[in-house]
Amino acid sequence: MSASLGFSTSVRAAPVRATRDAVKPRATRARVVTTAKRDGPVIIGLAADSGCGKSTFMRRMTSLFGGKATPPEGGNPDSNTLISETTTVLCLDDYHLNDRAGRKTSGLTALNLKEQNFDLMYDQVKALKEGKSVDKPIYNHVTGVFDPAEKIESPEVLILEGLHPFADTRVRDMFDFKIYLDISDDVKFAWKIQRDMAERGHSLESIKASIEARKPDFDAFVDPQKEHADVVIEVLPTQLIPDDNEGKILRVRMIMKENVENFDAPYLFDEGSTISWIPCGRKLTCSYPGIKFFYGPDTYYGKEVTVLEMDGQFDKLEELIYVESHLSNTSSKFYGEITQQMLKYQNGPGSNNGTGFFQTIVGLKVREVYERISGKEVVAKA
Amino acid sequence: MSASLGFSTSVRAAPVRATRDAVKPRATRARVVTTAKRDGPVIIGLAADSGCGKSTFMRRMTSLFGGKATPPEGGNPDSNTLISETTTVLCLDDYHLNDRAGRKTSGLTALNLKEQNFDLMYDQVKALKEGKSVDKPIYNHVTGVFDPAEKIESPEVLILEGLHPFADTRVRDMFDFKIYLDISDDVKFAWKIQRDMAERGHSLESIKASIEARKPDFDAFVDPQKEHADVVIEVLPTQLIPDDNEGKILRVRMIMKENVENFDAPYLFDEGSTISWIPCGRKLTCSYPGIKFFYGPDTYYGKEVTVLEMDGQFDKLEELIYVESHLSNTSSKFYGEITQQMLKYQNGPGSNNGTGFFQTIVGLKVREVYERISGKEVVAKA
Repeated sequence: MSASLGFSTSVRAAPVRATRDAVKPRATRARVVTTAKRDGPVIIGLAADSGCGKSTFMRRMTSLFGGKATPPEGGNPDSNTLISETTTVLCLDDYHLNDRAGRKTSGLTALNLKEQNFDLMYDQVKALKEGKSVDKPIYNHVTGVFDPAEKIESPEVLILEGLHPFADTRVRDMFDFKIYLDISDDVKFAWKIQRDMAERGHSLESIKASIEARKPDFDAFVDPQKEHADVVIEVLPTQLIPDDNEGKILRVRMIMKENVENFDAPYLFDEGSTISWIPCGRKLTCSYPGIKFFYGPDTYYGKEVTVLEMDGQFDKLEELIYVESHLSNTSSKFYGEITQQMLKYQNGPGSNNGTGFFQTIVGLKVREVYERISGKEVVAKA
Repeated sequence: MSASLGFSTSVRAAPVRATRDAVKPRATRARVVTTAKRDGPVIIGLAADSGCGKSTFMRRMTSLFGGKATPPEGGNPDSNTLISETTTVLCLDDYHLNDRAGRKTSGLTALNLKEQNFDLMYDQVKALKEGKSVDKPIYNHVTGVFDPAEKIESPEVLILEGLHPFADTRVRDMFDFKIYLDISDDVKFAWKIQRDMAERGHSLESIKASIEARKPDFDAFVDPQKEHADVVIEVLPTQLIPDDNEGKILRVRMIMKENVENFDAPYLFDEGSTISWIPCGRKLTCSYPGIKFFYGPDTYYGKEVTVLEMDGQFDKLEELIYVESHLSNTSSKFYGEITQQMLKYQNGPGSNNGTGFFQTIVGLKVREVYERISGKEVVAKA
């Protein structure tokens, strides 16, 4: 496998001439050419709750730009920042207004909008967007206090991940692409039980209590940002097994807003129609409970969206590549790129289901957004 | 429309050279070439109840071979036979054992196997298959007696339609392709009400009584032949409108047996998987209640089959051609041939729904069966 799916990625200046049509990468084309449109970083936002696999998502996304994303070299080992040659991922927890002790005094949770320093967040994102470097605070998740600031240079791709990327209008308006990772309560609960009970020895009651205590603020301050996202990845319990609540097999929906600049929604078979597809059958055999896809138009917060949904999980490579080969508009640069990326993180959570699958596709879309705006080309070799 | 979809059909001897691969007609290929395999007529069977649109089906099918099918020239005007240059359609009612008076005596219905002269049917079909001509009886549906026999020459394509084409094993084994048109009781009832009550002034009670009187013999003697068909066209009430029993909007299923010689099942998007498809959406707008397709594997009488299903009806040409363009393996000879055929019979029953659509596809399949077996080519011009 590794031999045939060997992989290398690098960024380089794009050749000059380009047309609008050439912007769309196609499987049959080796190189993508765009016209340079704007200087300064392309800014990507990812909103999600803590403990929902954001770091895996970030690894999937940044690796599509090549190189390895690591904390700033020689810096604070508790830094929340991840830097690669092209990308910088900032964690918005660094813009908390108060530290843990301060929140004890205010009586507010870290989910509360009042506990975020949106002014500083705006100033620093704006500066980075203008090509300047900033001295960003570090919120130390281990100690709960702020450590000395770290210097962040303006990158090619700036990714802001955290609880509130789209809550402040000034920050929200600076994003080139907005993603919301939406884990349903049932799945969050199943995951938390899995982790806190099985791995950390918490009781079922204490887990339930901690989820319920957190929920009102989450619903009030984080959840409403979904409305502003260009793409929402929604993670739900499977519908393939009646009354399943194990949270192991997942139904994942990629909800894609219509008419988003630099983004063409992927589709299944026939763009714009409604389709459900069970790939498992005479040509492809899958184990129980199988895999089911859905594709179709819908509305979300009153706006037109397209939904691509996967229920179930992949058991074998054949299933993954078979599904990939029937999707169009994925922005992959060569046949099997999604499968290759999934294999690269096969031990990470979600690598055999829709979370990893759609995170990978969103990663390809982010890469394309970057290419279209920057006019530069990310070279990916099959 | 007529200018761009002008149409002509003729049969001619096939050019010599051919490969196995060339047997499959494709939209992109103008000519179909096969190797001559067998002399004598290709024999097609269609089982169906009376008053279920068999004659429209026959017109759709024979017209794909070119020319016009008419009763034997200068013969009995009440003849049940239809002859075109290539095809001869025989009605199996001509092989009733007794006339109407005789059945009064026997006390059996025309549905009963004992009321068919299967020996004569077998002898004559066998003779026609061997290239001989026969003197076939004529059962006069108007008078209910047998008229003097008519001479039938051995044709290129012999189509036997009637109540019992597959009941006698000897006859059944002579068919090259077997079709069963299966109208569900609900739809039959709705149609009969439409025709006998609205057009002929019968009462609802008398219609119900006549259907119920007929049903036991139909179920005993006609219905079981479904098991032997290569393709069953099943006509059911729509599922798009809850509790609809008007019988105007239909759900039609084409049930296709696996591994039938000279027959490749058409498919939607991905051969061998399970798909439901609502073509109406952002790219194609349809009026209420829309159109819904299903495609997938199933079992039928314990055998593996593939089902292609259409629920709803076409309002406009765009819908028809859009759907046609997403089907594969239809055996059409040029882009839009199904749509063109549907337009040709647009005033016939079923021309805007799955009955006409699947009858047309079955017609194309029959044409292909003929080409593969005879090695001759039907030339259809777009």
